[in-house]
Amino acid sequence: MLRRNLLATVATLAATATGLMAFAGSASAQPAADVEAVRAANAAFYVALSARDVKKMEAVWANKPYVVNMGPRMKTFAVGHDEAVAKWWPAAFEFFQELNVTMTPSQVQANGKVAWVVGNESATGVTKNGPVKFTTFVTNIFEKEGDRWLMVSHHAQPIPQ
Amino acid sequence: MLRRNLLATVATLAATATGLMAFAGSASAQPAADVEAVRAANAAFYVALSARDVKKMEAVWANKPYVVNMGPRMKTFAVGHDEAVAKWWPAAFEFFQELNVTMTPSQVQANGKVAWVVGNESATGVTKNGPVKFTTFVTNIFEKEGDRWLMVSHHAQPIPQ
Repeated sequence: MLRRNLLATVATLAATATGLMAFAGSASAQPAADVEAVRAANAAFYVALSARDVKKMEAVWANKPYVVNMGPRMKTFAVGHDEAVAKWWPAAFEFFQELNVTMTPSQVQANGKVAWVVGNESATGVTKNGPVKFTTFVTNIFEKEGDRWLMVSHHAQPIPQ
Repeated sequence: MLRRNLLATVATLAATATGLMAFAGSASAQPAADVEAVRAANAAFYVALSARDVKKMEAVWANKPYVVNMGPRMKTFAVGHDEAVAKWWPAAFEFFQELNVTMTPSQVQANGKVAWVVGNESATGVTKNGPVKFTTFVTNIFEKEGDRWLMVSHHAQPIPQ
């Protein structure tokens, strides 16, 4: 009986320590499920981008008047779903005959109904002028609508060589 | 009596319409006080930047391991308060003998304890190599701690000429 109690105590201590370690391991009190969902939403953007798939790209974004798109080729940025998403991506997917963009997240932070992902993009593509290759710093911002994380801002600009 | 009731009804309708217009005028249900506080926190960053004031700059930022600083001159970005704030700004304020940066916000969005400001920066400065001048796209992200909005991410990169 003593031995069983001791084992139970050890098991409880171990569970508590695991819980504490899990808490200490996250930079802030953000639900792991949200962070995973944000990672998935962020990955879906790059799948849509590399597939040059307008429909998949539309599904990534929030349909809001304040969404912002700041891309590497832009000299003025696009605001609102119509300019930043509905008009922008079909034109971009015409401009690039091929496109492959991978993103390495450095930080994925979720707090309430907003999340942001910061990192580097590595892009290769083909336009009518030939092949292009560039790397960027990127900040992607998402808002949670119901149980879906939707992109509200995409800011990617080339890293100076 | 009828006239008084009619006037009361008109007053109620007017108040309702004003409320509806105020609601329609904001892109999302964000408290005006938060938006104003975020504008002030964002402005404080540019005051500190243009004054090259390390102490004021420290006061703008959250002291978190996940803060990110992606500046126009960087080839790798800085993560964590130590690298992104405590070490970065004194060095930057040494590099620039003079600096004047103004920011024009296009979008100021607050949702719960996160806010983001997107827009353009216009910068002039003097380094030991002479005068510099550039414009950027910028995304600044803030988190609310208690009643203070603190910067957790600054991403500014030059607009291609």
